[in-house]
Amino acid sequence: MANAQLQSVLDHIDADFDNSLERLFALIRIKSISADPAFAADCKAAADHLAKDLTTVGFATEVRPTAGHPAIVGKSNGHGAAKPHVLFYGHYDVQPVDPLELWHRPPFEPVVADHADGRKIIVARGAEDDKGQLMTFVEACRAWKKVTGSLPLDVTVLIEGEEEVGSKNFVPFLEENKDEFKADFALVCDTGMWDPNTPAITTSLRGLLYEEVKIKAANRDLHSGVFGGGARNPIRVLTEVLGGLFDADGRITIPGFYDGVKDVPPEVLEQWKKLNLTPESFLKPIGLSIPAGEKDRLLIEQISSRPTCDINGIWGGYIGEGSKTVIPSLAHAKVSFRLVEGQDPLKIRKAFRDYVSARIPADCSVEFGDHSAGAAIALDWTMKPLAAAKQALTEEWGKETILMGSGASIPIVTDFKKTLGLDSLLVGFGLDDDNIHSPNEKYDLKSYHKGIRSWARILAALAEMPR
Amino acid sequence: MANAQLQSVLDHIDADFDNSLERLFALIRIKSISADPAFAADCKAAADHLAKDLTTVGFATEVRPTAGHPAIVGKSNGHGAAKPHVLFYGHYDVQPVDPLELWHRPPFEPVVADHADGRKIIVARGAEDDKGQLMTFVEACRAWKKVTGSLPLDVTVLIEGEEEVGSKNFVPFLEENKDEFKADFALVCDTGMWDPNTPAITTSLRGLLYEEVKIKAANRDLHSGVFGGGARNPIRVLTEVLGGLFDADGRITIPGFYDGVKDVPPEVLEQWKKLNLTPESFLKPIGLSIPAGEKDRLLIEQISSRPTCDINGIWGGYIGEGSKTVIPSLAHAKVSFRLVEGQDPLKIRKAFRDYVSARIPADCSVEFGDHSAGAAIALDWTMKPLAAAKQALTEEWGKETILMGSGASIPIVTDFKKTLGLDSLLVGFGLDDDNIHSPNEKYDLKSYHKGIRSWARILAALAEMPR
Repeated sequence: MANAQLQSVLDHIDADFDNSLERLFALIRIKSISADPAFAADCKAAADHLAKDLTTVGFATEVRPTAGHPAIVGKSNGHGAAKPHVLFYGHYDVQPVDPLELWHRPPFEPVVADHADGRKIIVARGAEDDKGQLMTFVEACRAWKKVTGSLPLDVTVLIEGEEEVGSKNFVPFLEENKDEFKADFALVCDTGMWDPNTPAITTSLRGLLYEEVKIKAANRDLHSGVFGGGARNPIRVLTEVLGGLFDADGRITIPGFYDGVKDVPPEVLEQWKKLNLTPESFLKPIGLSIPAGEKDRLLIEQISSRPTCDINGIWGGYIGEGSKTVIPSLAHAKVSFRLVEGQDPLKIRKAFRDYVSARIPADCSVEFGDHSAGAAIALDWTMKPLAAAKQALTEEWGKETILMGSGASIPIVTDFKKTLGLDSLLVGFGLDDDNIHSPNEKYDLKSYHKGIRSWARILAALAEMPR
Repeated sequence: MANAQLQSVLDHIDADFDNSLERLFALIRIKSISADPAFAADCKAAADHLAKDLTTVGFATEVRPTAGHPAIVGKSNGHGAAKPHVLFYGHYDVQPVDPLELWHRPPFEPVVADHADGRKIIVARGAEDDKGQLMTFVEACRAWKKVTGSLPLDVTVLIEGEEEVGSKNFVPFLEENKDEFKADFALVCDTGMWDPNTPAITTSLRGLLYEEVKIKAANRDLHSGVFGGGARNPIRVLTEVLGGLFDADGRITIPGFYDGVKDVPPEVLEQWKKLNLTPESFLKPIGLSIPAGEKDRLLIEQISSRPTCDINGIWGGYIGEGSKTVIPSLAHAKVSFRLVEGQDPLKIRKAFRDYVSARIPADCSVEFGDHSAGAAIALDWTMKPLAAAKQALTEEWGKETILMGSGASIPIVTDFKKTLGLDSLLVGFGLDDDNIHSPNEKYDLKSYHKGIRSWARILAALAEMPR
């Protein structure tokens, strides 16, 4: 494939960028919140919209039912064995938007705004995660098709609608249709860059165990003036249980939690030290200054190679305006764990539940709910597509591409390996300050524009790589 | 005053009881939730309704503005120095109704229902606290007026609309108009009986300190995949702080919390032991079995003579359906303390705030809000009205009236003493299973009926007592 052809594709991307932006906005405007059943129709609408759009790029596209929100399958074949066949993965569902009052503008009305430091940013729920990211790939394909009449290699696009709720129904769908998704490897666009100017490929991912805890005490809400002091308060029980999850050194106290966790190799640790990730650079922008993890670990270890625990939500009793002297009958929490290689999510789940259950008074009870249980994954650093993509990214951004570990979980990568036998190449253009899962989510305009260009280059490089 | 006259009043109460019930229902139907600004107009409507009703009983009545919800003042004079002049206190405001889904029927549509054990009960928000209770007094006055043309003594009725939110604006109103509320003593109907058949007069009350805590960590909500392990989670901080409020023996760990707290005199403790308040009798009906307070104290001490702490509400992060891997920027709790004689609410407030503040990481912050700070009060067991009321109650119920301490707080009693110099006589007909402040609040039909009869007798006894 000639460099000239690639250059024409890149030029077209630049010339057509306003339209690329408008197509992203159209997708963002659909409120595809997968966690809330009230938005089920919006999820379906987003799938239909995206499928229609993929058809215009030349994919043979279907919206496919699952037991939950539908998936989209798009196929572009024709190269046969001469070229690699890639499976691209993304998700059209987004996180809930609460607390709504913290958004500066309506979350589903995307705009291009000015960041305080001068960067142009796209602001909306899904601007990054994952609508902006997946559209970088779609737009790169569109440019290839427009300029050359075809894609440089065979591509299957697979987009799900339940990533933000643990892909519970998508994984069975994958299993049932695995023959259809044969490919050489997967491309996943749901990760970040090292910084706004430095591209990165993610080569390890933490797993995610997400649990819900409900503690029940009395058979009804009680008045603290009558029962206070004598009747068990489930919020007190909950705070005592959760308040004991960490010791004074920031270590998680659940027995067996660190079993199987390996230290990062000394040479990698040396490399990480050179990256100079400091509380000043990492925490100050979010208003903090003291690393919250294990005291004897570097901040970069705390956020990438060490397992963690976060209480993502807690509620119980009277939480409205003013005061109510109630002893509630129930108290709840959502607790999640980022897991690293060597930790078995199901064993950690059992250890957590045992830990909690052992601390529940005999006249109270506890119920657990599970939202997800995905293991960590380390990718093959020697895979050929990785070298090709690394080179393409470096050319686009003019800076050496960094291979990095990610604290986030993308359980689908494990499922692709298990179900389809595919390795994944994780390339994405998100940034730490994108506020994904938070109010005022954004995506740098540069991430979107150069993200599209990056994929155009990667597709060329993958088509050309030695097989 | 002839016994025959009292008997006629009691007979009239029995004959008119259906109407008494309908008048209570009419008051209950007004949604006078004082804590929620959305119900401000309902509070005003309840005040207007009650004032109009008091006028029909012969009181010279006014709805009086305060800085918050209005108060009602009703006066019935004419006896001069020959008879005592009493100040009756009640409140027309009620607690919020959430969680609404736990109510078996709409909270503001009162009905008479059958309790599982055969008792007839009035079910609605405010059925007991305090609409049912205050109407026992109003209906007793109505019967006296109807049968004899007047009340047996001078009565000022003073009904507020902010008891459930700490009477913040009512107390200044009291202070500003104190000359108007001169009386010999106060009658307060906001307490309970010993059991469904045994009347009681409450002779000591715990105080109430009610605090709100807001812990702030990062300057925005964060994604746990990016920041988990490195960034402080305010829910973790909150659970660690609140989870440390009690030691393994159930004692509150705030330094100085128990300073000034006296043990109950041995003879009172002996009397209490005889009452045989057991986990079986007290906790089993609410589905519990293990006393939750200080391990070295009797259950009756835990709920009446010992200071307590309850977390009445807690919230933070994602509390909707499904999962969200968020590290929130804020975590909140509502924490209240029942105080006993010897504890200074303001000192305890400072000790609590110091305790919390000392446990907040240097890069997080905490804000406090105060909902109430009322001291405990012990009433004068030798006051003459107490002997008269005790005798009247014993005659009505056919069982010896018990003088008891209450775990609940009625801060107005302290304010009456401080502002007006008045002692209070606390007579009420509530029961431990009334679900006040909870879904499915109820008032025994017997409490309401015999409560009216009780006040009719007490008014007679107070008018006749030696001065």
